[in-house]
Amino acid sequence: MNVPYTSAVGSLVVQECNPIHFSECDIIFSGLDSSVAGDVESAFLKADLAIFSNAKNHRMGGNIPLVVPTANADHLDAIVQQRQQLSLQRGFLVTNSNCSTSGLVVVLKALQDAFGPLSAVIVQTMQAISGAGYPGVSSLDILDNVIPYISGEEDKMEVETLKILGQVRSTTESQQHDLFEPLTETKVSATCNRVAVVDGHTECVSVKFARQPAPSVEEIQRVLTAYKCDAQTLGCFSAPLAPICVAQSPDRPQPRLDRDIHGGNAVTVGRIRPCPVLDVKFTLLVHNTVLGAAGSGILNAELAVAKGLVRPAQ
Amino acid sequence: MNVPYTSAVGSLVVQECNPIHFSECDIIFSGLDSSVAGDVESAFLKADLAIFSNAKNHRMGGNIPLVVPTANADHLDAIVQQRQQLSLQRGFLVTNSNCSTSGLVVVLKALQDAFGPLSAVIVQTMQAISGAGYPGVSSLDILDNVIPYISGEEDKMEVETLKILGQVRSTTESQQHDLFEPLTETKVSATCNRVAVVDGHTECVSVKFARQPAPSVEEIQRVLTAYKCDAQTLGCFSAPLAPICVAQSPDRPQPRLDRDIHGGNAVTVGRIRPCPVLDVKFTLLVHNTVLGAAGSGILNAELAVAKGLVRPAQ
Amino acid sequence: MNVPYTSAVGSLVVQECNPIHFSECDIIFSGLDSSVAGDVESAFLKADLAIFSNAKNHRMGGNIPLVVPTANADHLDAIVQQRQQLSLQRGFLVTNSNCSTSGLVVVLKALQDAFGPLSAVIVQTMQAISGAGYPGVSSLDILDNVIPYISGEEDKMEVETLKILGQVRSTTESQQHDLFEPLTETKVSATCNRVAVVDGHTECVSVKFARQPAPSVEEIQRVLTAYKCDAQTLGCFSAPLAPICVAQSPDRPQPRLDRDIHGGNAVTVGRIRPCPVLDVKFTLLVHNTVLGAAGSGILNAELAVAKGLVRPAQ
Amino acid sequence: MNVPYTSAVGSLVVQECNPIHFSECDIIFSGLDSSVAGDVESAFLKADLAIFSNAKNHRMGGNIPLVVPTANADHLDAIVQQRQQLSLQRGFLVTNSNCSTSGLVVVLKALQDAFGPLSAVIVQTMQAISGAGYPGVSSLDILDNVIPYISGEEDKMEVETLKILGQVRSTTESQQHDLFEPLTETKVSATCNRVAVVDGHTECVSVKFARQPAPSVEEIQRVLTAYKCDAQTLGCFSAPLAPICVAQSPDRPQPRLDRDIHGGNAVTVGRIRPCPVLDVKFTLLVHNTVLGAAGSGILNAELAVAKGLVRPAQ
Repeated sequence: MNVPYTSAVGSLVVQECNPIHFSECDIIFSGLDSSVAGDVESAFLKADLAIFSNAKNHRMGGNIPLVVPTANADHLDAIVQQRQQLSLQRGFLVTNSNCSTSGLVVVLKALQDAFGPLSAVIVQTMQAISGAGYPGVSSLDILDNVIPYISGEEDKMEVETLKILGQVRSTTESQQHDLFEPLTETKVSATCNRVAVVDGHTECVSVKFARQPAPSVEEIQRVLTAYKCDAQTLGCFSAPLAPICVAQSPDRPQPRLDRDIHGGNAVTVGRIRPCPVLDVKFTLLVHNTVLGAAGSGILNAELAVAKGLVRPAQ
Repeated sequence: MNVPYTSAVGSLVVQECNPIHFSECDIIFSGLDSSVAGDVESAFLKADLAIFSNAKNHRMGGNIPLVVPTANADHLDAIVQQRQQLSLQRGFLVTNSNCSTSGLVVVLKALQDAFGPLSAVIVQTMQAISGAGYPGVSSLDILDNVIPYISGEEDKMEVETLKILGQVRSTTESQQHDLFEPLTETKVSATCNRVAVVDGHTECVSVKFARQPAPSVEEIQRVLTAYKCDAQTLGCFSAPLAPICVAQSPDRPQPRLDRDIHGGNAVTVGRIRPCPVLDVKFTLLVHNTVLGAAGSGILNAELAVAKGLVRPAQ
Repeated sequence: MNVPYTSAVGSLVVQECNPIHFSECDIIFSGLDSSVAGDVESAFLKADLAIFSNAKNHRMGGNIPLVVPTANADHLDAIVQQRQQLSLQRGFLVTNSNCSTSGLVVVLKALQDAFGPLSAVIVQTMQAISGAGYPGVSSLDILDNVIPYISGEEDKMEVETLKILGQVRSTTESQQHDLFEPLTETKVSATCNRVAVVDGHTECVSVKFARQPAPSVEEIQRVLTAYKCDAQTLGCFSAPLAPICVAQSPDRPQPRLDRDIHGGNAVTVGRIRPCPVLDVKFTLLVHNTVLGAAGSGILNAELAVAKGLVRPAQ
Repeated sequence: MNVPYTSAVGSLVVQECNPIHFSECDIIFSGLDSSVAGDVESAFLKADLAIFSNAKNHRMGGNIPLVVPTANADHLDAIVQQRQQLSLQRGFLVTNSNCSTSGLVVVLKALQDAFGPLSAVIVQTMQAISGAGYPGVSSLDILDNVIPYISGEEDKMEVETLKILGQVRSTTESQQHDLFEPLTETKVSATCNRVAVVDGHTECVSVKFARQPAPSVEEIQRVLTAYKCDAQTLGCFSAPLAPICVAQSPDRPQPRLDRDIHGGNAVTVGRIRPCPVLDVKFTLLVHNTVLGAAGSGILNAELAVAKGLVRPAQ
């Protein structure tokens, strides 16, 4: 839904992207383009500022939490170790994931928590044009068409998923290693497509569980429906009523109908059924500009505040 | 491309769908809706007429060839045994496949011929609205949207693929069994979606070969590029210049740009690359109303004529 | 924006469409299809019920107010005379206009109030698919296409506009005539098209004023910006902050960006400029399922309550 | 319809845009962007080369023919006077019109030839995205949307129409004046919109005739159907079978169904009916990249050859 800017937004002052101008900010959100985000965010972090970034540049950094708020909020706790390693007082850098990764990991996390490790995940996406920014995708490329390729996207999905679903290392371990220990036993294969949808990424997923026999469709439905996240427990303002909504109708989720559920911070899952090749397959939908982008950043910030990890600027 | 009917089409006489009116036809094409195709085609077959059908009703029949002309033209030879079993002189019934099956099997056949059996195939489709007929898909269901479900389509893809890629039984065997022996060692998992495209089904495919190590991406490219079909050898009028076109650009195939190549009877394949879960993955495109429907029927008929399987009406 | 039904909606009881079941309702909203609305609404009216209808059947009836709430709320006052003529105690029937009429008349009313009668109006619409209901427009008719015709729509726009912009007759006059006196000196020419937009009708309008010289572009901008409606004065809950929003950017209004302004009950006008043939031309946008349908019905009801025209069921 | 480049196209040599490299060309087609077309074409013309341009830069030049081949092929004859004025032996510069102008003037020319001058024309367009080039329109601007503005387009339609429908001055007159005498008594008002269509501009037109009473709908249908153009008489290869096709069905023309008629060089007209404000209104469709662009250039060249106006390079 598009609404005009309020005068509050209209009267905001735009400043040069220099840490000097931001020293009074308790929290800083970075939605910078990746062509500049790397250096700017590094400078802000060095200036002891607290940053939540949507950019891809630092996501895979060894001491940078990569957090989808309804999947791995516990990774935020590594802010403490990050500060130690970087000798910061109140600064930190937390990133959120790629838009298509975000929806996937919420569901995989729920499955992994309940049924143990996954051995394989095959995911194929149908992504909205808003994911490419503005002007982004040319209308001549997408009207009456599909683009079967999004540069760099498949790599991001495959790598980010393993980090998000992995563990935070203990303080002892993390002195010699990265703070985060990605999954090694789960293989992820992603195929990313662009389709003529304004908002909302649809993803068709097949999974294989390490545990055999695999859980039944009914067990999976029950587990996904019951899944809760820290943002709910901690009473975060933007927490979705449920992180995962399980659609009952066989033709759901659909991007235009389901993307706005719970303010865009819920993932909708449907068509859970056996996969003749792996164990189980299903289709999920995530709002790529809410949970898949700014919404994650905001909810991550709310979580960090609730967990007492944010220290006010003096 | 849409063009007005010519006067030749405009002056065609429409007859009641009764075998009596069709006895002078050497070949009959059935594009009937499945709600009536079953009975009508059975009656026509009993009347010793030669039918090429696009309907789904008889596809899985034990003595009915299910033929994608650029994949398994050799199944047409079973017309001889079909006539024996049904005591027909010149009549027969040949069906072509579901539209989304057609593109898949051409590529899988080329791989199977070159590298031996496949052990697993995972395919996810993004299908055009023309596949649902007219009025078919409501615009409110597809504008700014994806429908992640097409009733019955996934079953058809999974079952038809195994029959088409299977063998025709020898005359001796087929007295006790179906004429066709479907693959049993290949597992196929299909997920079917509808997207806002007028014509052209895009399919993302991952395959695992029985043979290990699996062939390389380069070997596969070479084999797909070199693939030839009977329709070419026999000089059929509608034979594509190549049954499979291998796209070089990483963002191809695209439905609007590639669906009309070689008159719509070629399948375009691109993005051939390793799959972290199975062996290899790629994306293919098939024109759903040409090779996926009427085009298959016509090319099947041309093949049957070229093979001497059609006997003129007296 | 699509959201799931709340349980309050889910627990509503569906009754047969018979006045007997509705006698306790203070207000009844009719969103019936025109194939049945005529008879059902007549029966409800005869049963002394208070009806706000979105159906076209009774709109042009001689004693039926046809009301776009932000344009001609004064026509609601004719409920008093309607009751007298039909010998009703508390019942009445008020209709709202065709969706494409609704946006047009709000702007024309503002112009007419400020500058006197219009002599000519040429309007051409680009209408959203939601205006045709569900399943409504086939996707094959609208993807990569325009349908330059909507059955009956142009007549409705031309006739309804004249009634809405006309006068309520005095009690004396209306004993021999219809309650409503449509404009006779204004000529309206409408051309209606369907385009690939989900919600929001865009209308390109040229007008000629009876008064010459015509008002300037600046005068018109000022008048449209300053336009107020009864729903605001009376403090109706659904009243838009402004009935008309004048867009400043030359490429506005746009349906996806502007349709939801003020909850869908405002009309956005842009591109006000001289017309080389008539006097002035501009482009307007109306949310066809809010002000153009249910939103008008609800706001009409709020207005009727505020004006003391609704009598509670006993 | 999209088809791969043939090897003939692939082996063409690309040269710097300097007249030196083009001296052996009998005919040169300019499809340059307007940011460079002005200077390049001037240099080519000065070098005595024969140019057919699709660029807007020189269209309104006093001695430059602006020609829609099926509307005002007689303006090509002014090449003779152009050469005299510019002291050229074989060079000339002919432009074709804006894409949206092209469809309009063919129909207006047929009406003007048959019924005399028009006093007013109001036209509103729904233009395809291909008219904006590549990448052109952002998908975020056109999916589920209409853009009610195309920079400069309305001016071009209003001005070009008057030049194309005007006269070539006699040699005597044109020594003091421009070669072309635009219409002065016809007022044209254009409103241009962009819609989600790949190819094909749809235009809703209302016209008023100087002659009163105006011709009837039947007379207009007859005249448009019977309209012939020089390209047909002279046997040009690309001449459409008919320059104007009159659609009978009330919901035509439609861009996807009608744009390719007669190879894209015909204009389809439908919905001819009385206009309550002017005299008559109708809807037309033109293929914006064929008759509205390259197709005009090619047919203009064929006409110039057929008329003996092209002199071979030595």
